[in-house]
Amino acid sequence: MRKSHNITLLGAGLIGTFYTMTIHGQRSRDKIHTVCAITEDEAKAFGQKWGIPKWTSDMAKAVEDPETDLVIVGLPNNLHKKAILLAAKAGKNVLCTKPLARTAAEALEILEAVEKAGVFTGYLEDLVYTPKTLKSLASVKNGALGKILWVRSRETHPGPHSAWFWDKEIAGGGAIVDMGCHCIEIIRNFIGKDVKPVEVICTAETMVHPIQAEDTGIGLIRFENGAIGQFEVSWTFRGGMDLRDEVAGTEGTIWLDHFLRTGFEMFTAVGQGGYVAEKAESDKGWLFPVGDEVHELGYVHMFADMFDALDEGRKPMETFFDGYVVNAIIDACYRSAITKKWEPVKLERWREAVKAGKTEAGQKIIGEKYVLIKEERMPDGKTKLILKDKKTGQIIQKVKDG
Amino acid sequence: MRKSHNITLLGAGLIGTFYTMTIHGQRSRDKIHTVCAITEDEAKAFGQKWGIPKWTSDMAKAVEDPETDLVIVGLPNNLHKKAILLAAKAGKNVLCTKPLARTAAEALEILEAVEKAGVFTGYLEDLVYTPKTLKSLASVKNGALGKILWVRSRETHPGPHSAWFWDKEIAGGGAIVDMGCHCIEIIRNFIGKDVKPVEVICTAETMVHPIQAEDTGIGLIRFENGAIGQFEVSWTFRGGMDLRDEVAGTEGTIWLDHFLRTGFEMFTAVGQGGYVAEKAESDKGWLFPVGDEVHELGYVHMFADMFDALDEGRKPMETFFDGYVVNAIIDACYRSAITKKWEPVKLERWREAVKAGKTEAGQKIIGEKYVLIKEERMPDGKTKLILKDKKTGQIIQKVKDG
Amino acid sequence: MRKSHNITLLGAGLIGTFYTMTIHGQRSRDKIHTVCAITEDEAKAFGQKWGIPKWTSDMAKAVEDPETDLVIVGLPNNLHKKAILLAAKAGKNVLCTKPLARTAAEALEILEAVEKAGVFTGYLEDLVYTPKTLKSLASVKNGALGKILWVRSRETHPGPHSAWFWDKEIAGGGAIVDMGCHCIEIIRNFIGKDVKPVEVICTAETMVHPIQAEDTGIGLIRFENGAIGQFEVSWTFRGGMDLRDEVAGTEGTIWLDHFLRTGFEMFTAVGQGGYVAEKAESDKGWLFPVGDEVHELGYVHMFADMFDALDEGRKPMETFFDGYVVNAIIDACYRSAITKKWEPVKLERWREAVKAGKTEAGQKIIGEKYVLIKEERMPDGKTKLILKDKKTGQIIQKVKDG
Amino acid sequence: MRKSHNITLLGAGLIGTFYTMTIHGQRSRDKIHTVCAITEDEAKAFGQKWGIPKWTSDMAKAVEDPETDLVIVGLPNNLHKKAILLAAKAGKNVLCTKPLARTAAEALEILEAVEKAGVFTGYLEDLVYTPKTLKSLASVKNGALGKILWVRSRETHPGPHSAWFWDKEIAGGGAIVDMGCHCIEIIRNFIGKDVKPVEVICTAETMVHPIQAEDTGIGLIRFENGAIGQFEVSWTFRGGMDLRDEVAGTEGTIWLDHFLRTGFEMFTAVGQGGYVAEKAESDKGWLFPVGDEVHELGYVHMFADMFDALDEGRKPMETFFDGYVVNAIIDACYRSAITKKWEPVKLERWREAVKAGKTEAGQKIIGEKYVLIKEERMPDGKTKLILKDKKTGQIIQKVKDG
Repeated sequence: MRKSHNITLLGAGLIGTFYTMTIHGQRSRDKIHTVCAITEDEAKAFGQKWGIPKWTSDMAKAVEDPETDLVIVGLPNNLHKKAILLAAKAGKNVLCTKPLARTAAEALEILEAVEKAGVFTGYLEDLVYTPKTLKSLASVKNGALGKILWVRSRETHPGPHSAWFWDKEIAGGGAIVDMGCHCIEIIRNFIGKDVKPVEVICTAETMVHPIQAEDTGIGLIRFENGAIGQFEVSWTFRGGMDLRDEVAGTEGTIWLDHFLRTGFEMFTAVGQGGYVAEKAESDKGWLFPVGDEVHELGYVHMFADMFDALDEGRKPMETFFDGYVVNAIIDACYRSAITKKWEPVKLERWREAVKAGKTEAGQKIIGEKYVLIKEERMPDGKTKLILKDKKTGQIIQKVKDG
Repeated sequence: MRKSHNITLLGAGLIGTFYTMTIHGQRSRDKIHTVCAITEDEAKAFGQKWGIPKWTSDMAKAVEDPETDLVIVGLPNNLHKKAILLAAKAGKNVLCTKPLARTAAEALEILEAVEKAGVFTGYLEDLVYTPKTLKSLASVKNGALGKILWVRSRETHPGPHSAWFWDKEIAGGGAIVDMGCHCIEIIRNFIGKDVKPVEVICTAETMVHPIQAEDTGIGLIRFENGAIGQFEVSWTFRGGMDLRDEVAGTEGTIWLDHFLRTGFEMFTAVGQGGYVAEKAESDKGWLFPVGDEVHELGYVHMFADMFDALDEGRKPMETFFDGYVVNAIIDACYRSAITKKWEPVKLERWREAVKAGKTEAGQKIIGEKYVLIKEERMPDGKTKLILKDKKTGQIIQKVKDG
Repeated sequence: MRKSHNITLLGAGLIGTFYTMTIHGQRSRDKIHTVCAITEDEAKAFGQKWGIPKWTSDMAKAVEDPETDLVIVGLPNNLHKKAILLAAKAGKNVLCTKPLARTAAEALEILEAVEKAGVFTGYLEDLVYTPKTLKSLASVKNGALGKILWVRSRETHPGPHSAWFWDKEIAGGGAIVDMGCHCIEIIRNFIGKDVKPVEVICTAETMVHPIQAEDTGIGLIRFENGAIGQFEVSWTFRGGMDLRDEVAGTEGTIWLDHFLRTGFEMFTAVGQGGYVAEKAESDKGWLFPVGDEVHELGYVHMFADMFDALDEGRKPMETFFDGYVVNAIIDACYRSAITKKWEPVKLERWREAVKAGKTEAGQKIIGEKYVLIKEERMPDGKTKLILKDKKTGQIIQKVKDG
Repeated sequence: MRKSHNITLLGAGLIGTFYTMTIHGQRSRDKIHTVCAITEDEAKAFGQKWGIPKWTSDMAKAVEDPETDLVIVGLPNNLHKKAILLAAKAGKNVLCTKPLARTAAEALEILEAVEKAGVFTGYLEDLVYTPKTLKSLASVKNGALGKILWVRSRETHPGPHSAWFWDKEIAGGGAIVDMGCHCIEIIRNFIGKDVKPVEVICTAETMVHPIQAEDTGIGLIRFENGAIGQFEVSWTFRGGMDLRDEVAGTEGTIWLDHFLRTGFEMFTAVGQGGYVAEKAESDKGWLFPVGDEVHELGYVHMFADMFDALDEGRKPMETFFDGYVVNAIIDACYRSAITKKWEPVKLERWREAVKAGKTEAGQKIIGEKYVLIKEERMPDGKTKLILKDKKTGQIIQKVKDG
């Protein structure tokens, strides 16, 4: 008999809407049963809109609702700890939206509380669950790209939709904590979650908006095995939401576009009379809508993994521990933005990782004397070999026909 | 209380696999309960693979299973009528894969049988349910493209995966009946299902494969309101599966790519060690996988609409009547391929359609004397008007600054 | 010593501008020496803008200018014959813009006049000279696509920039004669210029504009060797200029986009303060400019071939004979649009062509009994063969591991 | 009377081939008159292949050839200084390939020598001359993107074709000096050449190849006005040559793809029997050729600007001073890769630049009390404003209909 879940949802903003659309989506068997918003009115409006039987503005009451078996935290960052601690205390399973916390210290407190309570937890990092990302991860695991060398992840758009994101105190930072957390976890998945992040260099800029936090951040993360992660986030992008990942390995390449160029192109001289896509900036001219947003952004596969994991008694793909590692990397990024140098990633806890060695591609020996550096076909049809003399180190080239 | 369904599935081939993957997919509450295949062994293997409790090779027994409330027909084209008539006789709701039948005459027999039995029916035309198509149809309904003038739909790949498709007698034709049925129904949705198809011109070619049926077909459909539908299908395409639609209206344009260029690009020098995508032709070099095939191809939204419609007591978006119209258009195509001229579409039944007039864009009058033909910005920054004298018909041009 | 040319240009419209931009372009050694426009003022303005020493409104005088060795005809279609006959009479080399004439009869008169005069001639069909097309043609000649089966060529935009195009009498038709001529010659190049066009089916629609000629045309051309050409032209397209070609062969595929998606994407919220690209419809939002239009549209390589051919005493890639064949195909299209059936292409003259047989792909024999229809890798990693029994014609399938 | 040039070419490798193809290209009036290679045999073979009348292995003799008026340096990096000093001594105009030198110190010596000699000089940075880049720069100058905030430039491929590139001593570094020089100058052009580069952070990695220099480099450049440049270079990329630029401004965005996705796509099951494009890695499956490489890579427009500038007595777009600035930035990058922190760009010489202030977008005041942070259209059709209280700094949101 297949299990289903009755859920308490904390938060009735955009993320709560996306979560509810997904969980109440196509023929699903799980349901939001209780919703909690800041005011009773908001809770009621949300509840009525989505067919949710119970609503309240009392967080504790919502968490403790005996008719629900799972709490989903869809609140501003500064309330995650409070909500999760309430759930832990109530012995409730809990899923939390990204980022897990504002700092690694806060994340660690959360992690310890849920471990002590022994409840099931899941980290709602939707972007590692997009169908394209899942299939890419499978290919990488199959070895299609050889050893992963360099992963770039970008999220840029004109800025978030709710006031609290722009408030450094509530959010714990700006664009880096808001979107960098996505990019960092995407990078970790491609490079391998067992590979320890070692150090980061990061710049945090306030380029356009009249705010205290950064509206743009660029960072590099060096991993134990020599791989490099690169994230680019900005609230200053013009043209919609740019959501792209690139993976470079010794044997291959993956390029993913999740939002702006997905095979859906529309030109309209009159406007399309409605919503185009999240962060779209205009409704005339060439537009690039997305098929089914909650699906393309990974929400559908994310909740399926979370609920299946709970039913099957296993861990989901994304855990609170992952959320903690992401926060630790972000902490290092903010330190680096101030010190202007590479900063170590401080991880008080780290799983017993496979001690992955430095990435090293095999060397191809040519004849007795040479190591192959490169082989390329030239415009005249010939093949050129670049060779290094094993003894002297001298570099030479040879041309072969055909 | 949300309803769920126990289903009898007839057919355990590729389409049965796609249907089962979808219906048993993410957190769904519906289930295949009984599967029927040609041999007992095949039925058992399929049942065990997908966790289906009952299997049989006896079609009547499967249809009449008192524990199921719905029959899905996923059989070769020549068996659709037999299966649906069995379901109608058993008073069972029935969904049938595309095409509904091999000819309009056969489709009409089916239509009349289910109408007489009074059962719920749905036509499983997945490609009008792709998330991109659904969103596009909404935009078209909102007027984003003005009046629709011209719709092109293409499906080409290197050929189907099962022997029976290649057998003209079983399939009722070749590439046109196999894939043209998709294209035609996509076209009908964009132009408007109330707009009557009037006549077709079509060529059916056997270009590459040693078969009797056509492996390539190109057809034009003229609709009552002057709009033109254009389909292109082929089993000779090299490079994967090309699945694209284009919609041209007086105010806008839509381009959809469902499969080969969807923002997912991979290069691998070593192969990706597994399945790439339906009809992919190689596993090295540049590959273009698809995120989640059953979703991108419309299966998820199609079954959601079917089951929701059944639960809500309404008609689904795609009905057996639509299947009948598609068969009538295909019949005309095959006639035209022989007579080499435009052939009328013969529809014994047609809904009381809105009598849509010939598409006519409004005329813009300039001054007292002229009708505007066109306005264009030139490289030198000036604007040129092409005008027709209302009385004499003479065409002139005027240049304005800015 | 490298030769250079002094040119008489007839026509000072947009095409004359493109020709002059090209010929006076990067470090070129050829020059427009005399320009002829309808009025003396226009001729003078054009001459002064482009540094052309002589201008006139007298066509005969311009043609007979003893200081020029070559005449370029960039006039409305109804004046081509007059201009070319003047050039022939003057013994001048002559290049003519597309289409060569309004009808095949007119084209034949032209052809015979220049042959009698013995002058060098070239047909200025720029779109077969785009760098992408030239490289594609080379690949096709190298066999990269196997036998060519199907070539589709499209040109659609919101309509031409000069009044005379819209006048059926002057132009000789509408969108088909204006743009179909490009598509047809692109098709001929890919299928092979020695392969005779046999028959056409075509529809000519006046969908949007208040004109007598067609603003939209779709046609199929069947060639002697079984290959199919397909052209789509329209003056009703919204979104810029859509200029795409597709070539399908037994071994491969080519897709060319010459204008709207060429790796150049711009979003601007404020407008870009100038000209975007030919036929672009807006200057805000997402725009798709083109790098160097005269180069991308083939003008640079076209004139290089023409002048080099003249210098080297050889024929250029595109000749007046090609222009004549194109006109003959267009004539058949217009007949077909009226008779609503396939119409033969009437060619009074045809080169002694290689008598190409019907395209027939080799058959692969499996075992003693079967002909291979198709081989496909399935999602489960197995390979499926579709086979036809050579004797009985029965079609079966076999599954192999791996 | 138009001027033309007789040129001495130093170097007969791939870059010499590209330069010669360009200069001898379509109807050009300039010519390579003398070529110098390492051996007499190579010089002769190159001369005969390209119709160059004189060849030698004696660099001084080639430079001093009284029949040439211009020297082009297409030699390995370690020979640039020697060659340019010879040209300066001979009073010859001189163009030098990128990078100008191996270090800023070397570049400064070169700069002072040519200034003292008073000869015309040009820096052959082709990638700022691609047609797409030139048009983009014009749009940026027109204000289409507002203030430029962030420019990213990438060049990655599987590694260069000649042995000397891989030798740190000869080349002056690895991927950064080889390709970073392109990216840096592209960045400078978009941000503005008058805007001083202030500091850099850079990582230089040897990830794959058995060499001493870096095969991968990522760097950030901060400019005086707050804009950020970002370059990514690698010799480890799989899949061809990735050549992309992205420009982000307060009002818009530009994305350029110069090589791998330019609207030219080919699938071939049999191989295309020839050269695909520079750095292409395979000749089967999906290939992405380029139309006309020397044009797309900027060579045509680059030499046109150089020769026109010389004829017109003006400076070309790219000068030796630009080459010097690029070397100074690269020097800072290599220092940063060692110190692992931001390093200042040391410029002994800097033009009297416009003292550009910190980029600051205008603030929009709402009512009396608020500064607008952001405005976004929501899925429900309403518009949300994010506002900051001018006095308290508190951030709030307001929702408007429509």
